[in-house]
Amino acid sequence: MAGNGGSSSLMRQEIAQQPGVLRATIDSLLPRAGEVSGLAADTRQVLFIARGTSDNAAVYGSYLMQAYAGRLASLASPSIATTYKSRVDLNGVLAVALSQSGRTEEIVETLQWAADCGARTLAITNGGVDTPLAQAAEVAFVTEAGPERAVPATKTFTAELAALAVLALALDAPLDPGELRATPEAIEELLAGDLDLTPIVVELAKVPGVVVSGRGLAYAAALELALKLKEACYLHAMGLSYADLLHGPIAVVDADTPAIVMAADYGPTLAGTVELAKRVTGAGARAYGIGGGAALAAACSRSLPAPALPEWLAPIGLIVPGQLLTEALARHLGLDPDKPRGLSKVTQTD
Amino acid sequence: MAGNGGSSSLMRQEIAQQPGVLRATIDSLLPRAGEVSGLAADTRQVLFIARGTSDNAAVYGSYLMQAYAGRLASLASPSIATTYKSRVDLNGVLAVALSQSGRTEEIVETLQWAADCGARTLAITNGGVDTPLAQAAEVAFVTEAGPERAVPATKTFTAELAALAVLALALDAPLDPGELRATPEAIEELLAGDLDLTPIVVELAKVPGVVVSGRGLAYAAALELALKLKEACYLHAMGLSYADLLHGPIAVVDADTPAIVMAADYGPTLAGTVELAKRVTGAGARAYGIGGGAALAAACSRSLPAPALPEWLAPIGLIVPGQLLTEALARHLGLDPDKPRGLSKVTQTD
Repeated sequence: MAGNGGSSSLMRQEIAQQPGVLRATIDSLLPRAGEVSGLAADTRQVLFIARGTSDNAAVYGSYLMQAYAGRLASLASPSIATTYKSRVDLNGVLAVALSQSGRTEEIVETLQWAADCGARTLAITNGGVDTPLAQAAEVAFVTEAGPERAVPATKTFTAELAALAVLALALDAPLDPGELRATPEAIEELLAGDLDLTPIVVELAKVPGVVVSGRGLAYAAALELALKLKEACYLHAMGLSYADLLHGPIAVVDADTPAIVMAADYGPTLAGTVELAKRVTGAGARAYGIGGGAALAAACSRSLPAPALPEWLAPIGLIVPGQLLTEALARHLGLDPDKPRGLSKVTQTD
Repeated sequence: MAGNGGSSSLMRQEIAQQPGVLRATIDSLLPRAGEVSGLAADTRQVLFIARGTSDNAAVYGSYLMQAYAGRLASLASPSIATTYKSRVDLNGVLAVALSQSGRTEEIVETLQWAADCGARTLAITNGGVDTPLAQAAEVAFVTEAGPERAVPATKTFTAELAALAVLALALDAPLDPGELRATPEAIEELLAGDLDLTPIVVELAKVPGVVVSGRGLAYAAALELALKLKEACYLHAMGLSYADLLHGPIAVVDADTPAIVMAADYGPTLAGTVELAKRVTGAGARAYGIGGGAALAAACSRSLPAPALPEWLAPIGLIVPGQLLTEALARHLGLDPDKPRGLSKVTQTD
C-alpha cells in the first residue's frame, strides 16, 4: 500500500518526492551554513515566526536549538506585531521566519517587525528568493521542494525541517552533517518497503477523534500529524506533548479515542513514550505507535516503523508514515486528500 | 442556573469563590510588585515554566508581557531541562514558574535548571511558601485560592492570572492597577446574574468535538476552556488561536463540530474574532460566543456574556462562563465534574 499505492493523489506523489527534495535542499543549504553563522554571531537566542505546518516545523527548530545548540528558542506570537502593534526588545535575537509560499503577509509583517525591534533575520521558504519573505530577510534559505499542489503540505514540511537542521549546524550544535546527508536514503528505504497501513486506517475510520503525542523533538511530528488528520480527514485530532497529555487531557482517551504516539527509535524520550503507550492501553484505549523501535511497537496495539534516523533528525522521518496514514485514511473515508474543504494553499490572516 | 445552580459540585462552589479569591490574591500581591521589579531589573525577557492549566495561565502571561510590557516572553519546554538535560544561556531572563500545588517535580526541576543557566527566578503557586517550588525561587508569589478540591482547576487558574497581571505592573506595563482591583467585582456581577447555559449545554451534549478559539490574550482563555472540556466532559476540544485555526484546522469545523469563540468586549482582537464567527456560521457550523459584546453575540448562533473588563484583564473574566458551561455540561452528561477519570490533583511527569 505504501510502496507505490493504488493512488495517484497529488499528496501521495508529493510524499514520494521527499527523498529527492531533501537531497536537493541539503545540497543547496549545507554549504551556506557559514552565512547563518555570521548572521547569528552576536545573537544568543532564536525566535521562530510561522503558522500552520510551518509552525510545527518551528517547534522542531525550537527543540533542536535548545536541546543541541545551547540557545533559548521560542515561537513568536504574530499578533503582538500585527494586531497589538507592540514594541518588544529583540536585541540579541535571531528571528527565523518560515513560510512555504513566502507570501503570507502576516509572517512577512512579523519578520519586518522583528527587524525593527532589533533582531537579525533569516527566512526559510519554498517560494524562492523573489518572494516578499525572502526579500524581507537578511539571509534567505530557499528549500528545493518544487511546486506543492496538494493543499496538505508534506514535502515542504520536511524540507523546512532539513533547513532547520542546517541552522542547528550553523549555530555550532555538535552534530554530524553526515547524518543529515544520510536522511533522504533512510526515508527512501521506508517508502520502498511494504507498510501495511490498512489495519490502522480501518480502525481510525471508526472514531471521531484521536490524540497524537510525542515528547521533545518528536512533539513537532505529533503536532504535524494532528494537523494533517484535521485538515485532510476532518478527524478531531488533538496534538499534545507527552507531559501535557498527562496533565488533564488523558481523561479524553477512551475506547472511542485512541492515541497515536511517536518517538525516535532511541534517545532520551523513548522510555517516557513507551510508558505513555502502556498507560493508554492500560486504560482500555488503543495506542498506535510510529517509530520508537521494538520497545514502542511492543507497548502499542498496532504500530508503524519510521525511517532509521538519529534522534535529532528523527522527526523528518517520523512524519512520513503519518503522511501516508493521513492520505490513506482520507481516501478510505471517501475524501479528496488534495483538496480539503475550506482551505486554500496560501493562507492570509491579518 | 449560574446564579447558585441546583448543583453542589465542588467545581461549582469553587467557581463561585473566585471573586473572594481574586480580591485576597490582589491584596496580597500588589503591594509586593516592587520585589519583582528589583528581581527583574537586569533582565530583558520572561520565560514561563508550567504545565496543564498553569501552562494556559502562562500563555496569558506571555501575551501580556509582550503586548503591554515590551518584553519578549515565551514558554519553556521542560523536557530540555529534565529529559535532554541541556544547557541553555539564560542570562538576562526572568524565569517564572507556575504550579497550583507547588509540588510538581518537573516544574521545580526546570526552575532550578533555569537558575543554573543564569536566570533570575519567580514562583507563582497556590501551595504556600513552604512548597518545593516556592523554596526554589528567589521570590515567591503565593495565590490565595485556598484548597482546591475539584480536580479541574478553576479558582487557582484565575488567581494565577491575577498574579501575572501584578507581574506586568511590576515590569512597568503602563496599565492601571485600579482596573485590576475592580476585576473581582465584575466577576461577582456576572455570577450574580442569570446566565442561561442550558441551550448551549444541550447542543454541546450532542457533538463529539468542538474547536475553541480566541486571539491574543483571549487565546489563553480558549486554551483553558478546551482543557476543561477535555478533562471534565471528555469532549474532543481543540484549542486553537484564531490564526492557526485558519491555517488548516478550519476544515474540521462542520455541522457536528461547532466552534466556541472568545474575545474581550473591545480591543484589537475583537474584529478578527467576529469575522471568524461569521466564517464558521457561513460554513454551516454552529458558533458560540463568550464575551465580545454585542458585535460577537450578533455574529454567533448563541452566546454568553463575560464580565465587563478591559482587554488586558479580560481572560480572567472570559474563562468564568466557560467554567460554568463545563460544569453544567459534565452534569448534563451524567459525569462527576469533580472527579474526571484518569486524573489526580498533583500531576507528576518526569
